[in-house]
Amino acid sequence: MNGGRERALVTGCAGFVGSTVVDRLLCSGFEVVGVDNFSTGREEFLNSAAASGRFELIRGDLLDETLLREPLHDVGTVFHMAANADVRFGTEHPRRDFEQNTQVTLNVLEAMRLAGVAKIAFASTGSVYGESPVIPTPEDAPLPIQTSLYGASKIAAEGFIEAYSEAFRIQTFIFRFVSLLGERYTHGHVIDFFRQLREHPGSLHVLGDGKQRKSYLYVGDCVDAMIRALSQSRDAVNVFNLGTDEYCEVDDSIAWITRALGLAPKITYEGGRKGWIGDNPFIFLDCARMRKTGWRPTMTIRQCVERTVRYLQTASGV
Amino acid sequence: MNGGRERALVTGCAGFVGSTVVDRLLCSGFEVVGVDNFSTGREEFLNSAAASGRFELIRGDLLDETLLREPLHDVGTVFHMAANADVRFGTEHPRRDFEQNTQVTLNVLEAMRLAGVAKIAFASTGSVYGESPVIPTPEDAPLPIQTSLYGASKIAAEGFIEAYSEAFRIQTFIFRFVSLLGERYTHGHVIDFFRQLREHPGSLHVLGDGKQRKSYLYVGDCVDAMIRALSQSRDAVNVFNLGTDEYCEVDDSIAWITRALGLAPKITYEGGRKGWIGDNPFIFLDCARMRKTGWRPTMTIRQCVERTVRYLQTASGV
Repeated sequence: MNGGRERALVTGCAGFVGSTVVDRLLCSGFEVVGVDNFSTGREEFLNSAAASGRFELIRGDLLDETLLREPLHDVGTVFHMAANADVRFGTEHPRRDFEQNTQVTLNVLEAMRLAGVAKIAFASTGSVYGESPVIPTPEDAPLPIQTSLYGASKIAAEGFIEAYSEAFRIQTFIFRFVSLLGERYTHGHVIDFFRQLREHPGSLHVLGDGKQRKSYLYVGDCVDAMIRALSQSRDAVNVFNLGTDEYCEVDDSIAWITRALGLAPKITYEGGRKGWIGDNPFIFLDCARMRKTGWRPTMTIRQCVERTVRYLQTASGV
Repeated sequence: MNGGRERALVTGCAGFVGSTVVDRLLCSGFEVVGVDNFSTGREEFLNSAAASGRFELIRGDLLDETLLREPLHDVGTVFHMAANADVRFGTEHPRRDFEQNTQVTLNVLEAMRLAGVAKIAFASTGSVYGESPVIPTPEDAPLPIQTSLYGASKIAAEGFIEAYSEAFRIQTFIFRFVSLLGERYTHGHVIDFFRQLREHPGSLHVLGDGKQRKSYLYVGDCVDAMIRALSQSRDAVNVFNLGTDEYCEVDDSIAWITRALGLAPKITYEGGRKGWIGDNPFIFLDCARMRKTGWRPTMTIRQCVERTVRYLQTASGV
């Protein structure tokens, strides 16, 4: 507590999700310490935070075990949002997911243990379910076979967080997201398609067969859910799926994107039911547990996609 | 292949399980490369291997990413048995399970990928199920909450192995053991009790309430199961529970041990349903999948315990 204000630390604070969490916490009156190595984070995502007078930025790499020693002083909750979030290129640098998502999480946990921090919120992923036999997939789905290095690195991090919770009394909130969309969105199929169409508006090349079924959530709805869950539960370990109660095909998304851009490109398909190694051709999460808290998404997937396209147009000055 | 012989590499080759695997492979005509850092492994467990003329020992630490580069040449299968196998003391040095069980596994996988090794057999644990709501616990039990750093480190390793299998076509065999007993047994409740009773034959102090229910398997039966599974399956990812179709209470085991030693000590209990932080008060695995291969254990838990006591008496010269 500093002048009565609660203090939170956000890792990956300059990223898509992390910066949205920072703004929300500042808006709720928190003091916020943000940590980022700016490998993918962007300075401009912290502009409003910097103007708040209650935000402190630590530039550094969480693989450095000493980085969080000082900053965790007086922190009540850690929002661990830092990650290598690029599920698609795991096989090109196989150690990266392990280091950035698992090893870094262990460093965060160790620093929290030493500083006596009481609570962690963790950005996990629906990818931990691999190709689940149960769809929509609930939090207690059958123990999955991992199909991507990204999913493996996140379920590994989850396990260590849970074990730390048991051993050292750290209250734990694990959020398994579907893919997120909205302002500050920086990677994924919408930006890939947006960039292709800016380059050559008459053609679009699609990985897979266009029939992959995916669920998406608006980043603001996701952060709302996290804040709500943290305020309501006193359980030691809390695991929540976060998504919408719908899914779309890649082809649906393409139609929304091209219409929003006023284009009618010739579409070619790479083929195959998966877009890449480790791609999951059907992601759809059962979010009943989160809905029981009273939360629900404010936007449909189509609205998310359209809003993201508008954001990309503004951000790129198109 | 060397002179037509198949070549296997065994990590943790001087350990309880690893050395038993080495002997079995040599017995079946393999060339074997063994790796151990002798942190808990014992030279004498490799005496018969050394005498075979087909065994090569690498002394070194698997945290060294370069250690396996040369030794994996021409290897067809890696038996990754190296681990920090001490589930009980995880909270005293929280990084150890992560480093020895997860990080080391990633190093093994990376070395296998670079060398093009086709197959891995991995020593995992029933501890990955945490406190499962389903007992006996099958391989596809509900996605568990981890309750120990040991279990967390092993499920983390499993996930990376599966993801490597998907990405790099490494055939994968994951074996989730109950606790093992038999010759070369070096840690666990039988040796703890054996040592206490050697020190002071009139009294025995027990962690927990003595009612914890556990399953045990003879190490020879465990190694039989692994070899059989590897010879039978062509699936990319194979996960098998290995245990007996029975369990006992700690108090049962105490009765068998004290009878075998001809003692009637005064027994005191620490109390509580768990023996230590992260202890699972009821471990009992559903091993139907492994039994379908025709395998079955040759010994009851009682026979395992008695055989282990006899081994400890011989080994300690009592």
